[in-house]
Amino acid sequence: MSAAPEIAVPDRFAGLIGQAVAAIDTPALVIDLDAMDRNLHRMADFCLARGMRLRPHAKMHKCAELALLQMAHGAVGVCVQKIGEALALASKGVGDIYVSNEVVDPRKLARLATAVRTGGTRFAIAVDSLVGIQHLAQALAHAGVSAPGAIDVFVEIDVGHGRCGMAPGVPAGELARTVVAQPVLRFAGLQAYHGAAQHYRSADERRATVAAATQAVRATCDAIEAMGIAVPLVTGAGTGTFIHEAASGVWGELQAGSYLFMDADYAANQADPAAPAFEHALFVKSQVMSRPQGRAVVDAGHKSHAIDSGLPRVWLPQGLDFANGGDEHGVLRGAHLPELGETVWLVPGHCDPTVNLHDVMVGVRGGLIAGRVERLLPVDARGALG
Amino acid sequence: MSAAPEIAVPDRFAGLIGQAVAAIDTPALVIDLDAMDRNLHRMADFCLARGMRLRPHAKMHKCAELALLQMAHGAVGVCVQKIGEALALASKGVGDIYVSNEVVDPRKLARLATAVRTGGTRFAIAVDSLVGIQHLAQALAHAGVSAPGAIDVFVEIDVGHGRCGMAPGVPAGELARTVVAQPVLRFAGLQAYHGAAQHYRSADERRATVAAATQAVRATCDAIEAMGIAVPLVTGAGTGTFIHEAASGVWGELQAGSYLFMDADYAANQADPAAPAFEHALFVKSQVMSRPQGRAVVDAGHKSHAIDSGLPRVWLPQGLDFANGGDEHGVLRGAHLPELGETVWLVPGHCDPTVNLHDVMVGVRGGLIAGRVERLLPVDARGALG
Repeated sequence: MSAAPEIAVPDRFAGLIGQAVAAIDTPALVIDLDAMDRNLHRMADFCLARGMRLRPHAKMHKCAELALLQMAHGAVGVCVQKIGEALALASKGVGDIYVSNEVVDPRKLARLATAVRTGGTRFAIAVDSLVGIQHLAQALAHAGVSAPGAIDVFVEIDVGHGRCGMAPGVPAGELARTVVAQPVLRFAGLQAYHGAAQHYRSADERRATVAAATQAVRATCDAIEAMGIAVPLVTGAGTGTFIHEAASGVWGELQAGSYLFMDADYAANQADPAAPAFEHALFVKSQVMSRPQGRAVVDAGHKSHAIDSGLPRVWLPQGLDFANGGDEHGVLRGAHLPELGETVWLVPGHCDPTVNLHDVMVGVRGGLIAGRVERLLPVDARGALG
Repeated sequence: MSAAPEIAVPDRFAGLIGQAVAAIDTPALVIDLDAMDRNLHRMADFCLARGMRLRPHAKMHKCAELALLQMAHGAVGVCVQKIGEALALASKGVGDIYVSNEVVDPRKLARLATAVRTGGTRFAIAVDSLVGIQHLAQALAHAGVSAPGAIDVFVEIDVGHGRCGMAPGVPAGELARTVVAQPVLRFAGLQAYHGAAQHYRSADERRATVAAATQAVRATCDAIEAMGIAVPLVTGAGTGTFIHEAASGVWGELQAGSYLFMDADYAANQADPAAPAFEHALFVKSQVMSRPQGRAVVDAGHKSHAIDSGLPRVWLPQGLDFANGGDEHGVLRGAHLPELGETVWLVPGHCDPTVNLHDVMVGVRGGLIAGRVERLLPVDARGALG
């Protein structure tokens, strides 16, 4: 049998920098860099004015270049949820990374310990169990890391979300005491995040939920301080509630991430007058590829945009409804339907898992209509699940 | 400034072949190869007994090795939905690929035309518009492809799903005539697929829907044959309905894909006595990483498994309910909760978009408890959206 000719897989974004937006192959994840920059500055200004540390959640964009951009605009570092994400960003030069999530698996912790030993990036991690603390200390010991406070450790408390976290008050204090007893670990404070509250539509409900969380944080700080242990920092908050954590007097660091891109789900929240107004900066560019009577079908389905927080909104052309067409299609209806080959811009329902579906984000300057491609931003930590 | 030490990104599946299942880092997509092989043979036997061509949908597994395995067991080739998927699989040696979806963008069609010119793989594509046919013929001409029937073209008809597809009967016939008028295109027949029917829970409703679709197909074949054009083949069907298309007398080729892995959504369909019983063969291996009072939190959320067709089912340990914990978490409740560090096996709600979240599938032999890793299967066309 003779060898078959070799078929190449073309890079559909090759040579795109400097081209008009029309040249972007679909479906593609596109960042409106002008809108993103405005969001970047609005949040940086907010934190500066309030004297708050900002540590944006990079689980949202998974992109080292954007993490470094945020840090160049005042962020102290970034958060991630997985050690795989942390290592992907650290390998691209991000120098301060907090895994704001629990890891108990010794093999995973060994990977983190190796990176701590290598140096170059300051790491932090959350814990909510004795096992987690023991395994972390053992992993550092096995890796030969013995410098006092080689890694920052936050004790996570459950402030009402009902996911991870130790019970507030004395139980969390006992964990803090265990952290303090391990010299290689630096007790850095408390992780206190109410994920569900981010998406409560009512501004009053969000405020009330953070008020209750504030009581839980305060009680825990009191319990820990009664043990003679200082609580250096309380970290948490997201794009839906950060103004309340900032005003609480207990949080010192904000972890909002979605503000940079602003998805359809956050935009559906009742606005809070005290919060900066963020703009949509992340879009899926799609194309009409079928045009039966009464509908237009685009080439973007839920392999292009996550639908866990609802379907995408049609941004342009206006006046169209998006119905789920499955993995690879979206079905549009409306009075004025676009024709075959026309471009349709979508605002994803939820930016984090949408970004995770793409290898590259296409950054454009000058708007979605008349703009040009300025840069390609790799999703460095895409699929970094472990 | 001195150069920072370089942090490496470890390959968390390196050295895994031959290891026990316990060695698989979480979250991971794991194939029970024994169950998959049984599914493979059940479908191959069904098609052989019915004299049906099988062209499994590779949009499900996106893996050249699995496509070749299916073809080694009688499949005539595979389907995909995107030219990017087709090229990814063709570059790994898959020799017969049908893009069972419409593509009208000249740049995309140019990529396909280049691959047609290169040879080594036989391609087919669906059309439902004059524009699609014209752009395809132009792309082939630009690529210098002029051999008669260089690519197979199926005219898609809408058999009731309401997504893509020309209206059945004479309108579809007119498109077929346009295809026949282009010598470089070979009119290969009709694409007729009712996606929604795959997931109707009632076996009767699925049967009735395919019966109605059969009438639409028959009317279209009649209209085309009345124009003096032969309809060589009708292709379509999925894992939920293929027994009805096989019995219809009009379909000659089945496109079922999910049968190989069998997800929770398909398992929720009322069983059809005439259909082979497929087993779950695709699992997400997850780990308990937080264990607050009354719940266990695993490290797999909807960045590990797609939830468009519902949440995953907990497979092992038994008796646990899975609640959505967001992008990176699942929250388990039940009478006997697993402890920190324990393994939890999940059956994804929908296999296609779940596979698309992973770079690698870990194939194990000998069961999920006592088995060993036999092979790592790359998801070659992951993220091939364009």
